[in-house]
Parts: sequence; C-alpha cells; structure tokens
Amino acid sequence: MTAHDATQNVRIVLAARPRGEPTADDFRVEHVPLPVPGEGQVLLRNRYLSLDPYMRGRMNAGRSYAKPVEIGEVMDGGTVSEVIDSRHPDFRTGDMVLAHGGWQTHAVADGRLLKRRLDARAVPLTTALGVYGMPGFTAYVGLHEIGKPQPGETVVVAAASGPVGATVGQIAKLQGARAVGIAGGEAKRAHLRDALGFDVALDHRAPDFADQLRAACPDGIDVYFENVGGAVFDAVVPLLNDFARIPVCGLVAHYNDTTLPPGPDRMPWLMSQILTRHLTVRGFIQHDFIALYPQFLREMGGWLADGKIRYREDVVEGLENAPRALIGLLRGENFGKVVVKL
Amino acid sequence: MTAHDATQNVRIVLAARPRGEPTADDFRVEHVPLPVPGEGQVLLRNRYLSLDPYMRGRMNAGRSYAKPVEIGEVMDGGTVSEVIDSRHPDFRTGDMVLAHGGWQTHAVADGRLLKRRLDARAVPLTTALGVYGMPGFTAYVGLHEIGKPQPGETVVVAAASGPVGATVGQIAKLQGARAVGIAGGEAKRAHLRDALGFDVALDHRAPDFADQLRAACPDGIDVYFENVGGAVFDAVVPLLNDFARIPVCGLVAHYNDTTLPPGPDRMPWLMSQILTRHLTVRGFIQHDFIALYPQFLREMGGWLADGKIRYREDVVEGLENAPRALIGLLRGENFGKVVVKL
Repeated sequence: MTAHDATQNVRIVLAARPRGEPTADDFRVEHVPLPVPGEGQVLLRNRYLSLDPYMRGRMNAGRSYAKPVEIGEVMDGGTVSEVIDSRHPDFRTGDMVLAHGGWQTHAVADGRLLKRRLDARAVPLTTALGVYGMPGFTAYVGLHEIGKPQPGETVVVAAASGPVGATVGQIAKLQGARAVGIAGGEAKRAHLRDALGFDVALDHRAPDFADQLRAACPDGIDVYFENVGGAVFDAVVPLLNDFARIPVCGLVAHYNDTTLPPGPDRMPWLMSQILTRHLTVRGFIQHDFIALYPQFLREMGGWLADGKIRYREDVVEGLENAPRALIGLLRGENFGKVVVKL
Repeated sequence: MTAHDATQNVRIVLAARPRGEPTADDFRVEHVPLPVPGEGQVLLRNRYLSLDPYMRGRMNAGRSYAKPVEIGEVMDGGTVSEVIDSRHPDFRTGDMVLAHGGWQTHAVADGRLLKRRLDARAVPLTTALGVYGMPGFTAYVGLHEIGKPQPGETVVVAAASGPVGATVGQIAKLQGARAVGIAGGEAKRAHLRDALGFDVALDHRAPDFADQLRAACPDGIDVYFENVGGAVFDAVVPLLNDFARIPVCGLVAHYNDTTLPPGPDRMPWLMSQILTRHLTVRGFIQHDFIALYPQFLREMGGWLADGKIRYREDVVEGLENAPRALIGLLRGENFGKVVVKL
C-alpha cells in the first residue's frame, strides 16, 4: 500500500463466492476506521500476510476444515504483525508477533491468543509464515505422525517447490529416505534437485509423466504426501507399496472444481487398493497435532540454523496484489512460499 | 462326503477363473491318493473347512492380499483338522489342530507351521474358524488398532450377522460404544438386536436405507468397520464425523465386479472427504497385527466363557457342497459363520 493513511484500516473482503477459479471480482478493497483495542487486546500493524491454498476452501459456503469466510467479511490469513498499541500486559509497542491478522493492514487481537513472539535475529520474520510456521509444521507432523518414512524408503511429494512440499522432501532426506519431488516446469525441477537435494525432480506437465514417475520409483512408493490430487494422484496409486502411508493435507488440483469428473467411478477401485495393499490414507491439518509444535520449533530451528533445511519465498508487494497472487498460487504459478508485504 | 474311501484324498480344485460371480463350473472335484507325510510333517484329516469372503479374491489372477490359487490347485482354506499320522515329535494321532488344510479331506502339513492345538473342552472346535479364529481376530484387531471406539461413540458395521461383523458390534458394545449393525432381511435384523445386543439393526435392502441409517446415527458415525463397500459405504460417508476411523478388511459387494461402475468419478470426492473430515482409512488383514494373537485368545476366551460374546454358525454338510455355499456367502445368503463339515 503506497501512501498509507495511518488512521485507516485497508482491508480486502470476500465480495462474492467464486464458482471455479476465483477472479478479481470476488474480492473488494475497503477503507474503514482503525479498530480500537479493548482491555486485554492489542492493535496490530500487519507487516506480512501469508497466502496459502487452504484459503480457496474458505471462500466456499460448504463444509471444509473451518467455517467459511462470509460475504463481506475480511479474508482470513496468518500474518507477521507489529504491536502498535497494547492493552495487554505481556505485549509492548514494537513487539513482533505471529497473528491471524487477515487480509488487512491493521487488526485487533486478544493478547492471550497471540501465542508466538518473533525474533528477527534468530530467523527472518517471514519464515514464521512458511518453513518455520504453519506450512513447515504441516510437513513436519504429516511425516512424523502419518508418513513415518524409514531409511531407504521412497517418499513422493507434489507441489514440491512450495513451502509444504519442499520441507517434506528435505525432512525425508534428513531421515534417510529417498525424496522424489514433482513440480511444474524446468526451473522448479532444477531448484528441487540442485538447491533442495531431492533425489529426483519431475515435471508433472510432461506428457509421459506417469512413466517418468514409475522410472523414478524403481522400488515403489512408501509415502505419498498428498497435497494436490488430480493426475499426480492417478499416477501415484499404481506405484504404492504394501503398507504405504498417504498423509492428505491438501488437494489443490480440485479446489476450483465445481462438478465431479466424468466416469467411470473409481471410488470402489481406490477402496480396493486401500484394502489389498494395506494402505493408510489419513486427512489432517497441522492443528490436529498442535502438541508437537514446541518440538517442531526446536527441531526445525536447529535445521534452519545449521542450513540443513532451505526455503524460498515469493514476496508480493502490496495488499492490493493479494487477490491476483492467490489466483496465481492456485494455478501453481508461485515458486516458493507466497508472502504479501504490506 | 458319504462313503468316504479312507485311502483317497477328495479335493476341490479351481477349474476356471470366474468372471463375476463364480459358478459350479469354476470348481472340480478330484480323487487322488492320500498324501504321505515326510519327516517333521503330519497327515491331517480335515474335519471342518472355513468358508470366507477372501476366497473370492484368491480365485482371480490379479494381485490381492496373497498369491492367487492357480488353475488346477486345491482351493485354499482354514480347517479344523485331526492328526491321523505324525512324523513330528510335538503331535500325536488324535490331536486336533487349526490348520490351513484347504478344500480337501486330507492334507499334509509341517508340524512347525501348526501353531494352535485345539481343545474341544474349552470352546467348540468350530469356533477356531470363526469368532475364536481369523474372523474374530479380524474384528478384534480392526477395532483395537484402527477403529479405537471410545465410550459413547457410534460404530457402524455391515454384514453384521457374519462372523466379523457380529464380533465387531459386540466388542464395540463391551467398550461402551453404540453399535449399529446392517444386514439383509428381517431375521438377521432381529438376531442382531435381540441376540447380539446391537443398539440398532438395519436392513440394507430397505428402499430408504440411507435415511434409516441417518436416523440411527443422530450423532454421526465415528467408526465404520468396512467389510462390504457398495451402497452401504455410499450411505455411510456423508454421516462420518470429523476424525472418524475406517478399518477396511473387506469389500464383498465388489468381489464379483468385472468393470468399474459408471461415473461420475467419485474418487476425488472421497479424497476431499478424507481431507476435510480428517478421516483415517486403513486397509488391513488380521495377520498385519499377528503379535496381538495371544492377547486376543486370552481376552476373547474370557468373553466367550462369560457369555459376553455370542456367535452363530451355518454348518454345511459335505465337501461337495462347499462351492455352492461359497457362492451363497458372496450373495449374503449365509446367516452366521459358514463352516463345512467334512
């Protein structure tokens, strides 16, 4: 936001529920007076806003992880925020915190709900929205609690240049497994292989992608970390080993779907694969395993300090560009973690 | 077998691989000389043969739990058998054992592979093929390791008058959960409700079955013990609670399928339900948890002795009737555990 008026809150609300892919018209910018913190609250100036695939689900009326954003409500989102006024004894002006500030320049939050104070000297602040925050924690608990990769096993993950996928592959490597990453385009492939240390990186757009995946997994697949669905899942299922585990944390290829795909109906086939291959398929969000958060901060903090886990961020300038950036993210146009600088 | 010639082994082999529902022509009766036990082996006279839904899978060439029965090979199956000649120091003539004797009057077995000696004074011998054997153990470990019903939760199981389903419902009740059983026909319904203590028993053939199931589960479904698939699964999925668990041990409604059903393709829909409802779907066979077998024998032995778990058996007379009985079992014509008396 250029020339920001410090007496106003600029915010983006849900203007309409998208059918299929969201468009700019589904969002509306509003200028409203600054909110005033009550007793026990703080006033936040949001500095960075996280954009994540789950936001598409919140734009629908239907049941998803959480209640939907209502029409006219501010779009939901995690933020790195600065305390600019405090009526809570634990926070002072100038404190940086991880908050759920939403798509807006300012927000009021209950001090007791702000669980994490941030220290820019330890790791860059933006990592609290990515590798050292919700997406990194998603990767961590999905492997720790469901995927459980063993040394020598093969772990496959799609959207592998994104903050969840990139972290999945690197943790799998740290645990002695083979990591096969899938992403769109040659630049992402090179990044996975050369910067992040994946054993193999594949482009899901290749016409012979399913054959490439088979060749990349000569011993089959033991863990498929599911965050996309679609054609990647179709190519993965026939390669799953007995006792394979599938943590399911996202299905971004389907978030814009408005109807079921044409037949035949493969649901009974999937169930028969689950049965005869002894598969475990489990849906989760990171919050299901929130008890592991302190352990994650400790372990991931060490990996980041030691350079054992790397990450990449796409920083978008200005709140007004958030809608376009989310639309792009849902198309797979981002490279790494998408953060909007406010 | 009437007028059995004690110098001959009568056996039923797989004559042809069925397409869809098996027919009598897929089986062939053969008379062959008695096998001769080698060193460390015993000669068995099979007394009871277990018939189970998994046998349909073994008749296919494709990948399933285990390698298929080859054309011309004896049909696979668990048996209660009497040792009639022993060349193993641990077994004597007259010992009754649980064996994998197959569809035949006689078999040779390695003594070291015969893990369980049976005592008819404790529980009836045939229970080793049902409630106190593989089907009961399937129910036990599916709940113990995957379903994990909590007091007050709702557990739903189909084929509920069969040996797995009946045991699932009764163990769920012992653990303080509500048990909703599904079976075909009024007689089975009454049995579930009146003899086995299910809270609700439904007939899946009712035209308004899905509505009945919804009414029977006012608090949703926490555990669905999947052993049939098909229309029951379709009715269950919309009722699943967040964090529901689905142990998958069978899909008998689909065993005779030769093609996928027509569209739309509900596979992505199922995955999105798994994701947004935090479901766990896990395929297993009882052998995956074989370490729990001693614990099962102890606990189930106590329940049977105390009359806390009941069971029902359909005894079919004569090996020559086994093919017809298996075909009927796959149609849901049996009432309880199907055992062939040889």
